[in-house]
Amino acid sequence: MLSTLALLPALPGTTVAVTAQTTAPGDVLPSWREGPAKQAIFDFVRATTERASPTYVAPDERIAVFDQDGTLWVEQPMYTQVVYCLERVPAVVEIKPELRNVEPFKTVLSGNREAMAQLPLRDLETILAATLTGMTVEEFQSEVSRWLETARHPRWNRPYTELTFQPMQEVLRYLQSNAFKTYIVTGGGQDFVRVYAAKTYGVPPEQVVGTAGTTKFGYGRDGKPLLTKEPKLLLNDDKAGKVEGIHLMIGRRPIAAFGNSVGDREMLEYTRAGQGDLLAMLVLHDDASREYAYGPAAGLPDSKIGTFTPALYDEAREQGWTVISMKNDWDRVFAFEA
Amino acid sequence: MLSTLALLPALPGTTVAVTAQTTAPGDVLPSWREGPAKQAIFDFVRATTERASPTYVAPDERIAVFDQDGTLWVEQPMYTQVVYCLERVPAVVEIKPELRNVEPFKTVLSGNREAMAQLPLRDLETILAATLTGMTVEEFQSEVSRWLETARHPRWNRPYTELTFQPMQEVLRYLQSNAFKTYIVTGGGQDFVRVYAAKTYGVPPEQVVGTAGTTKFGYGRDGKPLLTKEPKLLLNDDKAGKVEGIHLMIGRRPIAAFGNSVGDREMLEYTRAGQGDLLAMLVLHDDASREYAYGPAAGLPDSKIGTFTPALYDEAREQGWTVISMKNDWDRVFAFEA
Repeated sequence: MLSTLALLPALPGTTVAVTAQTTAPGDVLPSWREGPAKQAIFDFVRATTERASPTYVAPDERIAVFDQDGTLWVEQPMYTQVVYCLERVPAVVEIKPELRNVEPFKTVLSGNREAMAQLPLRDLETILAATLTGMTVEEFQSEVSRWLETARHPRWNRPYTELTFQPMQEVLRYLQSNAFKTYIVTGGGQDFVRVYAAKTYGVPPEQVVGTAGTTKFGYGRDGKPLLTKEPKLLLNDDKAGKVEGIHLMIGRRPIAAFGNSVGDREMLEYTRAGQGDLLAMLVLHDDASREYAYGPAAGLPDSKIGTFTPALYDEAREQGWTVISMKNDWDRVFAFEA
Repeated sequence: MLSTLALLPALPGTTVAVTAQTTAPGDVLPSWREGPAKQAIFDFVRATTERASPTYVAPDERIAVFDQDGTLWVEQPMYTQVVYCLERVPAVVEIKPELRNVEPFKTVLSGNREAMAQLPLRDLETILAATLTGMTVEEFQSEVSRWLETARHPRWNRPYTELTFQPMQEVLRYLQSNAFKTYIVTGGGQDFVRVYAAKTYGVPPEQVVGTAGTTKFGYGRDGKPLLTKEPKLLLNDDKAGKVEGIHLMIGRRPIAAFGNSVGDREMLEYTRAGQGDLLAMLVLHDDASREYAYGPAAGLPDSKIGTFTPALYDEAREQGWTVISMKNDWDRVFAFEA
């Protein structure tokens, strides 16, 4: 999209200093530097929303899907939801004191970060089950809400919900204002993300697709119906599961997909296998000074969290997906930056 | 809602014959007779959408859920989707001729309706699996679309999608025009109902919650990603499962719920356990001449399909749910009536 600045007559007595201005008025993506990534977004929106376009898409069919961790917000050094689960352990032990000296709770209570990082997957699952299930859905929602108010990211000492990427927030708003239904499709817990998605991303709960466990309908002591979260996996919303989750929860193929790791590969492939003009983008975390640098694609350090493999990088090149360089494409990473 | 007719000045030279007119201009529910059911709908919409109301609900939170079979369209003498499955059997046997002389396919191919009606549940499940799974989601969608074009209901000799209840269509439109998100929450197949819900009810696929099987992501011979429908149940969206399905797919509690049978009981209970002004309605099929009459509530004949028990009727009375009498509350049942 051309800057609307060029179309505006200069006001009398003012000098419009175009070159000195990094953000043109009317630019809906002001945190993006000019370049192929920003251009790809504008081209896609024009191709799908302008009535005269041969690839015009009716408003009802404008579905865009966004991975969350590493795509919309920071996922290092640990997924936010995992931090939540670890920090909830003391409250769980308060209610069930018999767990205090039982592994893996004992290790988590010790506060020894090194030992915690070495807990096997099975132990982590025990902690997830103990902290994410066994309560009503309303109890869980208020526990997460309360935690989000006080929890702080160790690097920035800010609430996790402030650690969203400003350029991606702009893409969300830009698509929403063009009648796109924006969905979060996350490997994280659906119930967890739904607690803050509306406030944080402008995405209502019903547009959050994530890993979900079963719930059980029953009646409380007062005879009122209630839903209890159970430790039984219903949808593993990662990799191929993201596509299966999209079919289950949305029932149509997206025309735009945003991700950042091997967990998003199938979702991008599925999106691009549709008809018409289709957008597929991957955020590459190559900015250690403003955020983090990890791949191992593009010679970046390896990471267990948000792995972006060289094979994924090659597939993106071959398939015409756009790789977003955090370092080069983003003028600003966070809203709180000066 | 008062008729707006009373507020209009009579045009010169015309006589406004109020008493002769059953439908007042501006009445958004013209197929409903004046009475407590119609009034309950108007009262609820006023209480939840007028800014000055103490029970005002923000547009984002206006969720209304509708059962389909027996609530939005005819479910007798057989659920439409079951008719679909039975009528698909010849096409399945065409592809797999070895099934021709195997039960229950043999009985279905015989066309003996009496024998078909006596097939045990396990046999019916075999037929559902054979006709609803094993193909890609796109193949299934086009098979259903094609069937809907030619299939006819035996009593009215009309397409099934014309057998929707006009008064309920008006409620859907009325709520939609008041910023409600209207969902279908059906014991029927989610993928089946999604094929026609947008055209038939103005409900987009992502607002259809139904019984769902798993799908499997994979790649076709051309290397393109595809999703195949599997014969494995993921969500049994009936009774308590409707509430669990609402949590999974919507993530918030509805403020209005419409049903017609014991399969909708928990959904209505859950809706009414929320805060504020809450609408719960049950359609009673007491009109054998225009549609069907079955209960066994209110002394109506028993029915395996859409059972409305005396216990449900009592619960409705005690809880202040509104029972809609098809015979007394609806002036017109179908759009095609004169």
